[in-house]
Amino acid sequence: MVYKIVMAGGKGERLWPLSRRKRPKQMLSIFSKQPMIKETYNRVEAIFQHGPVWVITGKEHLTQIKKSLPKAKNLRVIAEPVGRNTAACIGLAAILIEYDDPNGIMVALPSDHYIEDGPKFKNALIEAVAQADHFNSIVTIGIWPTYPSTGYGYLELGSRVGYGHVERSCRVYAIEKFIEKPTYEAAQGFLKSGKFLWNSGIFVWRVSRILDEIKQHIPALYAGLQKIKKHIGTSTFSNTLEKAYKTLPNISIDYGVMERCRESFTVIGNFRWSDVGAWASLEDIFSIDREGNVVVGPAILSKTRNSIIFSDSKKGVIGIHGLDNVVVVKSGEEVLVCRKDKSQEVKELIAKLSRDKKFSHLT
Amino acid sequence: MVYKIVMAGGKGERLWPLSRRKRPKQMLSIFSKQPMIKETYNRVEAIFQHGPVWVITGKEHLTQIKKSLPKAKNLRVIAEPVGRNTAACIGLAAILIEYDDPNGIMVALPSDHYIEDGPKFKNALIEAVAQADHFNSIVTIGIWPTYPSTGYGYLELGSRVGYGHVERSCRVYAIEKFIEKPTYEAAQGFLKSGKFLWNSGIFVWRVSRILDEIKQHIPALYAGLQKIKKHIGTSTFSNTLEKAYKTLPNISIDYGVMERCRESFTVIGNFRWSDVGAWASLEDIFSIDREGNVVVGPAILSKTRNSIIFSDSKKGVIGIHGLDNVVVVKSGEEVLVCRKDKSQEVKELIAKLSRDKKFSHLT
Repeated sequence: MVYKIVMAGGKGERLWPLSRRKRPKQMLSIFSKQPMIKETYNRVEAIFQHGPVWVITGKEHLTQIKKSLPKAKNLRVIAEPVGRNTAACIGLAAILIEYDDPNGIMVALPSDHYIEDGPKFKNALIEAVAQADHFNSIVTIGIWPTYPSTGYGYLELGSRVGYGHVERSCRVYAIEKFIEKPTYEAAQGFLKSGKFLWNSGIFVWRVSRILDEIKQHIPALYAGLQKIKKHIGTSTFSNTLEKAYKTLPNISIDYGVMERCRESFTVIGNFRWSDVGAWASLEDIFSIDREGNVVVGPAILSKTRNSIIFSDSKKGVIGIHGLDNVVVVKSGEEVLVCRKDKSQEVKELIAKLSRDKKFSHLT
Repeated sequence: MVYKIVMAGGKGERLWPLSRRKRPKQMLSIFSKQPMIKETYNRVEAIFQHGPVWVITGKEHLTQIKKSLPKAKNLRVIAEPVGRNTAACIGLAAILIEYDDPNGIMVALPSDHYIEDGPKFKNALIEAVAQADHFNSIVTIGIWPTYPSTGYGYLELGSRVGYGHVERSCRVYAIEKFIEKPTYEAAQGFLKSGKFLWNSGIFVWRVSRILDEIKQHIPALYAGLQKIKKHIGTSTFSNTLEKAYKTLPNISIDYGVMERCRESFTVIGNFRWSDVGAWASLEDIFSIDREGNVVVGPAILSKTRNSIIFSDSKKGVIGIHGLDNVVVVKSGEEVLVCRKDKSQEVKELIAKLSRDKKFSHLT
């Protein structure tokens, strides 16, 4: 059985003022009228129609997330008492699935990424499940890079091992090496070589296999999970989870397992993808006009180039004159104006807003 | 008798989105809770308490302007059928005053300038009235320049003729020459020399004298005014005004009379003044913080310098990160973001908005 894990623990404060503490990135409707988490749910549910979908989120967002998802028999929403990064999130999902089905295959996806839906995404996932199922592999989906991003992690391709039984383009490769956010020059080299993919953060593996890896590489996490596991299906589960979860190590699955494990594989994804990590990411997704601008919502630009303008309101207008390389975002009564190539730094502004009594409720 | 003329025909579209077609610059409350036209009225009414105030405005703003002014016995509001620049406006005021009092002294002021209120302004005006009264002079108020503005007109000082009987600093000089918007280098030279003032657009003269000057230098305007004059006090006045006014030459009093007349004088004004001609003018008036920013309204700035942030709402917040030399203005649902040194060019943006069916109602 394929178990779908939608990881919805993110805050996404770099998309302020659209994202807020009470409206994290996965709740935003940027690319359609639906929140990204619902798009994620629909996308994966359409591919693997049998078996449950687990949505793991922070307890502060539980009600809101439940509301935005369809009432489905197979949907289970789990609240993390505190955020403890992706290794703990995946570990928790793994022990819960293991309880029912130790041989279950887990497909874990971030809830707040942009993915071009269609057969390319479907085929890549099916290929990854086949690889994990037949060879008990640790599998990730890699994305053909389209520009030398310095914001993404990269995978270096080793030898082709794969199967490719779904589609010729969905080849499977051994991963030679993980490279975190490279310099621009290095990223240019990666692109030229044709031997590097972006790491999409989508993982596929058997639950028993990932728990083995966690045991080996993050023993403290494994020990904590074992404590929680004993209480699954009993009345003491939520209390134990509450207490034990906060003691789990705060580490990503990439650092904790992927970079340490002996052998892992990637399926080449040919679909358009973005982690929507900052406002500048909108250039990866929306069409860019002749002046290099991305405009979403009512706006008028004059003598303006290479900028991103976004409004979530149909009312009013944003007027821009004589600028280059800026991001302007309007949401409700809040406005962000930022240098585009500094849009990752919006969190600095949010930190400042949070410290200000007058404005902290607006973050 | 001193007749106060408040010239309120301006559009002030360079202050969009605060200014709109239906809310011209003189109606804006930027420096206090009162619209600028009311501040102008109060300022001049407090100095010359006897005698009427004439407010000349466009007929489209008549109701609104009347509403914003106190109901005073001596207030007369005149609607220009169409805007025909300051020479026609002053000429119209002159024939109306002449009808009652040919020896009346006219003090004509723009309704939409920032003026630092206080004894310095009062003394300069009284000095100018004394000069116009005793010597039948053409008088303007000049402003000590505080920086090499390239947006203002300058007056070159000739010999001191003055009276200075009100205050020592209120000296009167003959005007040697008028210089329209100079280059930055020229403006720097003007400042250094100490022999140049900014032309404030405040004029003082006897009505008979200015009508003589108009007769001599703008004969077409004079002829038109004579036609209108015949109907003052009769039932045909408004019809005649409607028909004749649009045929009057469209010329400023500066070009039409001041630069052509044989002899004119200036009283040195030591008060802070700005024509608030564009958003960048706010730097002349509001205090500038250590990073060079002017912030009016709720805003948080990080790594931002030399910028102007203005909101007329107490709600929400404007967040700015990583920028230099920008203007950000929020008013209602509209937002302007503009390079500060291009803030004069906002009219290009307004032209674009006006041509767009979706947005023309927002200009």
